[in-house]
Amino acid sequence: MREVAVVGVGMVRFDQYPQRSITDLAVEAVLAALADAGLAWPDVQAAWCGAALQGMTAGTRVLAELGLTGAPITTVDNASASGSTAFREAYLSVACGLYDVALAVGVGKMTGGGAGPPLERREILQIQAMGFLPPAGVFAMRTRRRMHDYGATTVPYARVSVKNHRHGALNPFAQFQKEVTLEEVLQSRLVCDPLTVLHCCPISDGAAAAVVASLPRARRLGARPLVRVAASAFRSEIHSIDGPLGPTITELTARQAYEEAGAGPEDIHLVQVHDAFTVEEIDYYESLGFCPRGEGERLVEEGATTIGGRIPFNTDGGLLARGHPIGPTGLAQVWETVLQLRGQAGPRQVEDATTGLCQMIGAGGVCVIHILKR
Amino acid sequence: MREVAVVGVGMVRFDQYPQRSITDLAVEAVLAALADAGLAWPDVQAAWCGAALQGMTAGTRVLAELGLTGAPITTVDNASASGSTAFREAYLSVACGLYDVALAVGVGKMTGGGAGPPLERREILQIQAMGFLPPAGVFAMRTRRRMHDYGATTVPYARVSVKNHRHGALNPFAQFQKEVTLEEVLQSRLVCDPLTVLHCCPISDGAAAAVVASLPRARRLGARPLVRVAASAFRSEIHSIDGPLGPTITELTARQAYEEAGAGPEDIHLVQVHDAFTVEEIDYYESLGFCPRGEGERLVEEGATTIGGRIPFNTDGGLLARGHPIGPTGLAQVWETVLQLRGQAGPRQVEDATTGLCQMIGAGGVCVIHILKR
Repeated sequence: MREVAVVGVGMVRFDQYPQRSITDLAVEAVLAALADAGLAWPDVQAAWCGAALQGMTAGTRVLAELGLTGAPITTVDNASASGSTAFREAYLSVACGLYDVALAVGVGKMTGGGAGPPLERREILQIQAMGFLPPAGVFAMRTRRRMHDYGATTVPYARVSVKNHRHGALNPFAQFQKEVTLEEVLQSRLVCDPLTVLHCCPISDGAAAAVVASLPRARRLGARPLVRVAASAFRSEIHSIDGPLGPTITELTARQAYEEAGAGPEDIHLVQVHDAFTVEEIDYYESLGFCPRGEGERLVEEGATTIGGRIPFNTDGGLLARGHPIGPTGLAQVWETVLQLRGQAGPRQVEDATTGLCQMIGAGGVCVIHILKR
Repeated sequence: MREVAVVGVGMVRFDQYPQRSITDLAVEAVLAALADAGLAWPDVQAAWCGAALQGMTAGTRVLAELGLTGAPITTVDNASASGSTAFREAYLSVACGLYDVALAVGVGKMTGGGAGPPLERREILQIQAMGFLPPAGVFAMRTRRRMHDYGATTVPYARVSVKNHRHGALNPFAQFQKEVTLEEVLQSRLVCDPLTVLHCCPISDGAAAAVVASLPRARRLGARPLVRVAASAFRSEIHSIDGPLGPTITELTARQAYEEAGAGPEDIHLVQVHDAFTVEEIDYYESLGFCPRGEGERLVEEGATTIGGRIPFNTDGGLLARGHPIGPTGLAQVWETVLQLRGQAGPRQVEDATTGLCQMIGAGGVCVIHILKR
């Protein structure tokens, strides 16, 4: 396997765009990534598009707008980890020498009637009618379990939301760019006890893209600090978010990623994780090895995971504030990490960051972790 | 890139199974492929699932039934070419040395309310209301164009249906196992002039799977003739089925495949193609290089493409008789080709076949071609 660099990233600010099509969103992100790389669409030799619930062969449909050049386009679906999976496929295709330049794009539209097939929707409505709203219900139970196990109140979880909204307020591409107070989080509308709406990520539309290239090709493109892919790990497994009873899927996938990168948590300078619900971020502090099991609540309370702290998490606002259109979210993490490692993150810049980790989970039992290195 | 063998194939007879789930269908196909390979589910190091319009992350949902082992599962969607794309991804992952054993599975359920998102369905209904039924309308126009260009009647197209139903009658895994006469094809119910229903593939449910392995691993599995992947070509492009005005996507993809295999049409002993509509098979005779442009009608009239003829096409009945559940169809082609190359195709065996070609197109502009070699 040869080394691979991320040579361009682009995204459309995540927001609700009921009047824009997935094609419109994806094309804007791809053109931004290509411009960032100094490449044109015909330079792309293969593309993977991460999309969930966007209809048949979404990738080909949206990229056809740029013209079909013969480069193969594959739509991949791994729920929330779809964009991360697309990035991995593009990375692997260059790493194994098949292509010199490959594109990963993710797109998702949750407003305006994207949504799944009728059967799935009926199932969801039935479960809702029983008072259990997935996925919020699952993470409400997980929050209660941690509160029981570790004697916590809801405050540490609320602090994750406060922190990520503060980060989002520094990111012009975040859906929410407004700070929230602890009181606002605790007192916002209840979704599923004990989770209020500010513990939950929003409904979002958007797109994000990354262009990867072999190192020789990347070097020919310019003098910018090269961001390399140091590890790409992917497991399908039961999530086992049941605490200390067994290693979680994130823990097992992180082990693979750290081994591949020849690094450990102590070498990582910033982390993006799947904080669809606040408790998740705290679970991942532990699963990724940044503190022992049961001490995640303390990590956020101490401010260790805020920008300026020991190990900043979700520097772009995370799913909670940057938004979560499903398909592109993993690529928004890559976008943020690349900007940070290049020193282009403006007011939310993590000083001297040279190594970043991106983690996504996906419904059904998926975890994808990438480590990027300047 | 190292050599890769197909060590196991399995499928569920394509048919209408309104009472069976996609999980049920996929698991049966995977277990058959694993049994054929002499492997167990935990031996699979990575899996790709081809599925179109089957809901979010279909591959993980169906394979979870066998247990999630940590092996990464990715759902890919390339419309009709989804199964072929899954096969290509599995092949490439072994070819580039990432894994020793990988699985490709395809699954599709077109009965019982699979279907696409509401928006897409509304668009289709609008077009239907104007009297133009896609995709049959497109291929009806294509048939008319060939009839005009080459002075043909509808008889040669009908003969494709007669031939493929004859082949299907020899295949216990075909949806239709009953011969049809030329008169029956010509006089069956009109779908879109000049295409009657027997010119069109049916609505099908089903699943198919293939296990690929590195050559050393394949050799350890047993003494059966090894079937290797000699070429895997994939392009996304405008189909340009407008005849002699430009090379079609199948022609361009075939060029890549032949070059990769170091072979030409003269080296191929049997071919499986996307005969969703009869005219397609005749177009592909030409695009794949088995006769000059404009002579495809003659090829079928002469009987060259029947089992026993010079170059048998769709030996398992093709989409027309074996069926077309979309997601798995490309893997049913691999299933048939592997059985043929092993000499296990029973009454439809092509004598001394050592090299087979599988071609699939997908809506939106996709062509995938594999060449398998004993």
